[in-house]
Amino acid sequence: MDKFTFTIEAEEGKARVGQITTPHGKIDTPVFMPVGTLGSVKTVSPAELAELKVQIILANNYHLYLRPGLEIIRQAKGIHNFMSWEKPILTDSGGFQVFSLGKGNKGDHNLVKIKDDGVEFRSHLDGTKHLFTPEGVIKMQETIGADIIMCFDECAPHDSTFEYAQRAMERTHGWAKQALSFHEKQGRLSEYGHYQALFGIIQGVIFDKLRLESAKYISSLPFDGIAIGGLSVGEEKIDMHRTLDLIEPSLPREKPRYLMGVGSPEDLLEGVERGIDMFDCVLATRIARNGTVWTKLGRLNLNNAKYSSDFKPIELECDCSACQQFSRAYISHLIREKEILGIRLTTLHNLRFLMKLMEQVRVAIREKRFKKFKEEFLHNFEK
Amino acid sequence: MDKFTFTIEAEEGKARVGQITTPHGKIDTPVFMPVGTLGSVKTVSPAELAELKVQIILANNYHLYLRPGLEIIRQAKGIHNFMSWEKPILTDSGGFQVFSLGKGNKGDHNLVKIKDDGVEFRSHLDGTKHLFTPEGVIKMQETIGADIIMCFDECAPHDSTFEYAQRAMERTHGWAKQALSFHEKQGRLSEYGHYQALFGIIQGVIFDKLRLESAKYISSLPFDGIAIGGLSVGEEKIDMHRTLDLIEPSLPREKPRYLMGVGSPEDLLEGVERGIDMFDCVLATRIARNGTVWTKLGRLNLNNAKYSSDFKPIELECDCSACQQFSRAYISHLIREKEILGIRLTTLHNLRFLMKLMEQVRVAIREKRFKKFKEEFLHNFEK
Repeated sequence: MDKFTFTIEAEEGKARVGQITTPHGKIDTPVFMPVGTLGSVKTVSPAELAELKVQIILANNYHLYLRPGLEIIRQAKGIHNFMSWEKPILTDSGGFQVFSLGKGNKGDHNLVKIKDDGVEFRSHLDGTKHLFTPEGVIKMQETIGADIIMCFDECAPHDSTFEYAQRAMERTHGWAKQALSFHEKQGRLSEYGHYQALFGIIQGVIFDKLRLESAKYISSLPFDGIAIGGLSVGEEKIDMHRTLDLIEPSLPREKPRYLMGVGSPEDLLEGVERGIDMFDCVLATRIARNGTVWTKLGRLNLNNAKYSSDFKPIELECDCSACQQFSRAYISHLIREKEILGIRLTTLHNLRFLMKLMEQVRVAIREKRFKKFKEEFLHNFEK
Repeated sequence: MDKFTFTIEAEEGKARVGQITTPHGKIDTPVFMPVGTLGSVKTVSPAELAELKVQIILANNYHLYLRPGLEIIRQAKGIHNFMSWEKPILTDSGGFQVFSLGKGNKGDHNLVKIKDDGVEFRSHLDGTKHLFTPEGVIKMQETIGADIIMCFDECAPHDSTFEYAQRAMERTHGWAKQALSFHEKQGRLSEYGHYQALFGIIQGVIFDKLRLESAKYISSLPFDGIAIGGLSVGEEKIDMHRTLDLIEPSLPREKPRYLMGVGSPEDLLEGVERGIDMFDCVLATRIARNGTVWTKLGRLNLNNAKYSSDFKPIELECDCSACQQFSRAYISHLIREKEILGIRLTTLHNLRFLMKLMEQVRVAIREKRFKKFKEEFLHNFEK
């Protein structure tokens, strides 16, 4: 199992169930990938992730490059060893972070400079100058050693002009080609000798012409998978849905498709319906740290006074350890008192909620009742 | 097992190995009790506490009375159910907190008013006025439902005058008698019908005359156990040791002795040598949250740059999950980045360190080599 493969096992409309194999194990798709930016899914241990049936997690090249730095990860013999997680990992290239965070401490957008060979930016931590190039970013990710790595891309703001969006897309296309040829030269291998799948990223903001052009271009290159970037960054839902509908026919059926940064329960179902196989998002863990949890009947904010004497579990049918052992009243008390166990429990619940949702999605597609499942879920969740 | 018993199983000098039985299980002594002030040992889940072989934890009447409030705990049918911890629990009366925190938001010591029937203070959370009486504090703890409860006491500052220390001690003695007679009237039972052991507290600052008087008085009353309060509150070590040596002959051999608020590795050994059976302290968990961990060879501060590329576990021989799975480099990275997993791991390690230390102490006393064990431990730990 040292190659990257993707097999489609069932389909319903555009929705698909499949399996990805990587050097660190298999992944059933559609899959939600929890985010561990700095090499830790916030508040959760690797053993707990495995208990939640998490199949793959994300880490971020921009953040790991700055801290702890690549030399530390090299000495640890890669990110899997460093963080003690033996299952698959995907690293984002950091393109998104360079443009959103790389303005140094002064926050001046002009401090992010696009040069011929790459992008110069300032660390959001200490203002030091750094240069990311399409090849350099691949090399960094080869040192980090994830199973799936991403091209360096420019995620233009959702309110960009057509002209800017076009320039950013063209840059992203050029970088994609450079990244691919660089990684190809290394035999698509990490520093530790295992195969690293490389995904290209489609951009184009919400301009149909650009999105279609980008989808076709990225699909034409020999990537292991296709990512869709620049969505769920502030645009209207309707624009995201239209864009996904628009580009789907241009995506190769046989490659996994990854919708970057998307992860509310509703958006996961909308994405699956439109043929997406992989998702990641900080939402589940971020709202958990504010005391908000998902249930089949919608969101609960455990800071709300009524939960302080509610002795039911967050969700009666849930098999997560928060629901198996603790009441809303107790967790609500912990959240109010800023006890860390509180946000551990809400995080575990929200992650398990998404894992279970995706398990149900996979079964529903196999049984050709995904459309009905989606309708019922949303009916209960949004009422 | 619905009564409270204490059996001494082995002795070496004044040091003793024993076993306490409570309605929620047995406790091997000498024992260190982790502190879960608000019904949660900071960062740790009950399942993890059990894994660490924690036998009993502490909670605090002052804090639980203010938040979540006794009515919530009553509805949960007691603190064990509320926090999902089935083993023994001890609640401190909150005497210490009333005097140290009960000054409201303005911090004016005069806002703590000693009245005929008890002490009026202001909540450190919202400045509201509250009255704690010796009987009321027992009633509150009967609602919380711990296995061991404490008398309301006044812990005078370590630099008190003799006159003030004497008045505080005399008040504490009067309150002790009232507490005992009130709890006796309830059959020494919690609201939920299980036996609650009541401990009296010796005070007297560092005045030998007062300490001796207090030890004799508290020992003369039919308490289930004897606590020593007002030490480790800023006085010199030598004064703590002298006080313990002074009062030990006055303490009934057959009752467990609890040295309140003491819990550095060195102080645990000094206490055991002087005949103490029970200890609690926030030190282990508090320093963990600053990135400091204990090893046999002393303290490590994982914020120190040298640990960022140190791939050894915190302690090679340690069986805690932090040491079994993670390197100093990884934990140091997490601590630096304020990732919660980092302080979870340092907390687990420090608690396990104390649990293991007390396991070794118990074996050493049984084998009549405690004195040697203590010398060797301190030699390595302090060098």
